[in-house]
Amino acid sequence: MAEKVIIIGSGPAGWTAAIYAARANLNPLVFAGRPKQTPSTILPGGQLMLTTEVDNYPGFPEGVTGPKLMAHFEQQAVRFGTRIVTDDGLNPDVSNPDDGHSYKYHDCTKLDLSSRPFKVWGEGDELVEAQAVIIATGATANWLGLENEQRLARSGGGVSACAVCDGALPVFRDKELAVIGGGDSAIEEASYLTKFAKKVYLIHRRDELRASKIMRQRAFDNPKIEILWNKIVTDVLGDKMISGLKLQDTQTKEKSDLPVGGLFLAIGHTPATKFLKGQLELDSKGYINLKDPYRSFTSIEGVFAAGDVVDSVYRQAITAAGMGCRSAIDAERWLAEQGIE
Amino acid sequence: MAEKVIIIGSGPAGWTAAIYAARANLNPLVFAGRPKQTPSTILPGGQLMLTTEVDNYPGFPEGVTGPKLMAHFEQQAVRFGTRIVTDDGLNPDVSNPDDGHSYKYHDCTKLDLSSRPFKVWGEGDELVEAQAVIIATGATANWLGLENEQRLARSGGGVSACAVCDGALPVFRDKELAVIGGGDSAIEEASYLTKFAKKVYLIHRRDELRASKIMRQRAFDNPKIEILWNKIVTDVLGDKMISGLKLQDTQTKEKSDLPVGGLFLAIGHTPATKFLKGQLELDSKGYINLKDPYRSFTSIEGVFAAGDVVDSVYRQAITAAGMGCRSAIDAERWLAEQGIE
Repeated sequence: MAEKVIIIGSGPAGWTAAIYAARANLNPLVFAGRPKQTPSTILPGGQLMLTTEVDNYPGFPEGVTGPKLMAHFEQQAVRFGTRIVTDDGLNPDVSNPDDGHSYKYHDCTKLDLSSRPFKVWGEGDELVEAQAVIIATGATANWLGLENEQRLARSGGGVSACAVCDGALPVFRDKELAVIGGGDSAIEEASYLTKFAKKVYLIHRRDELRASKIMRQRAFDNPKIEILWNKIVTDVLGDKMISGLKLQDTQTKEKSDLPVGGLFLAIGHTPATKFLKGQLELDSKGYINLKDPYRSFTSIEGVFAAGDVVDSVYRQAITAAGMGCRSAIDAERWLAEQGIE
Repeated sequence: MAEKVIIIGSGPAGWTAAIYAARANLNPLVFAGRPKQTPSTILPGGQLMLTTEVDNYPGFPEGVTGPKLMAHFEQQAVRFGTRIVTDDGLNPDVSNPDDGHSYKYHDCTKLDLSSRPFKVWGEGDELVEAQAVIIATGATANWLGLENEQRLARSGGGVSACAVCDGALPVFRDKELAVIGGGDSAIEEASYLTKFAKKVYLIHRRDELRASKIMRQRAFDNPKIEILWNKIVTDVLGDKMISGLKLQDTQTKEKSDLPVGGLFLAIGHTPATKFLKGQLELDSKGYINLKDPYRSFTSIEGVFAAGDVVDSVYRQAITAAGMGCRSAIDAERWLAEQGIE
């Protein structure tokens, strides 16, 4: 028999959808995703797994680590009856998030959304049918792919892909920081960081910014922003904490060191929607288009989407979780309309 | 000098906006609202203050009480520099939520949004100016206004205005429950509750449902739903836990008792927007209209809205918090565009 609802993804949106779907007696099945090392690391739990302290998820006044917060989400989803697809076919004991159980989680490898019930394939070509599907596969920040960048990002060593999330951390106060990128959001992040930093270097590999004219002007007008043109970062320096960058000029090939107390990547995000191409309406950047931006309906009836996979604007744990809730409520009501309770 | 941003409201949306605005160095000022007893009770902290156990706010796998969760939100906002307007002009010590400090919080009594900086009046005609305003005043569920109804609602005695929030609680499993109302959402809540309950009485004061035809049919077709026509509830019975309802027939005036193990109100919500009338675009039910439903912009540039005050669909703590985050990020970026950092 077809599942009532399958949830693909296990970040704040996916687990919140699972919590709400489980509490609505929909007995949700989750493809939480297998950890993998592409240029960046992808883990069940999503982007928060790569952060240390989370200070802005409401409800934790003293902060909480990203992995601990996501373990709480997962435990809550499982408590209400969520099932997770695993190597041995059994739900893991999620009481100890450090025992590596999430390494057994399966990817969803393929979908057929052309007719209902929808067809969802897991690893090993395992087929599951579903009346409704919630897609919450998220987006990954683009990184340079340097070993030291990844190491320091993961250990809270002053390397981040989210200024709004991490800019206010004491470790960046009155420091000289670097932002890499040349688009609107790079300038947005650089401007944001000038609230805290002594100075912000905007490092761009070309000799002009891709950003809109008004944003470019904002960068030029901000006395705390200095743009370093035609520079690429070849290494990130520092042991426990970032101490600087190795730069190379793209024109002169000249090498230099730039001492900085923090590095923020702003070279875009990649929504995890490759497996959806040709099936579901995506925008030009690969984000899933919502039919009504207040709801979670996609271009296919019965398919819902939530979290960073639709969000190129906010990308916060709390906004993703809010959307996960919306998607489960929408799915529940839609299933009830179809007479599937 | 004008404040950068004033936040009106102190539920999940208001405090989340404050957390994000404070972390963005906007030094937000909050009108958290003075507790009051209208037909229903209004408290700083919003609707969650009237609930006991919250099981569906992601991050708390064992559940958390509504007041405790809102105290966490407030502590977090204050930790990052949020200021709250109080009787003595000072921020309260929020470390102990039970000391009654929130009873000193001020209402926003009046607004003038016709020109910038906006004018915001607190109690005693105190005027504060603001470059940006975030409205997160919420909505209150409509109640019958019966003393026993209010008492049992507040003590976790089986009376609720939110089936999605509370329906899954063990206390309602396999019980006979009552839903009061006759609109689409009353039927939605009644259908939802049949997942858990032995039987659901839908109590309606008239002899036909206001709900749409398709929803009416859903109620008629559900063998677990019995509609009691022409009935009003005159009292709620039970000491610690609801045991039944006193009903009166609106036609025959006949009185009867109906034993039930739970009562769910579904007679609408009232958004707290009276003080905005004529200033900001509202919809026919009084909810604030968003210019773009994915964002938090209202009909007036520089005025943002978040939470139940815009939401007639989901009304969950997590969705409100997500919107609060959106509003602070939108406000921060808008202020930066205006050159106010």
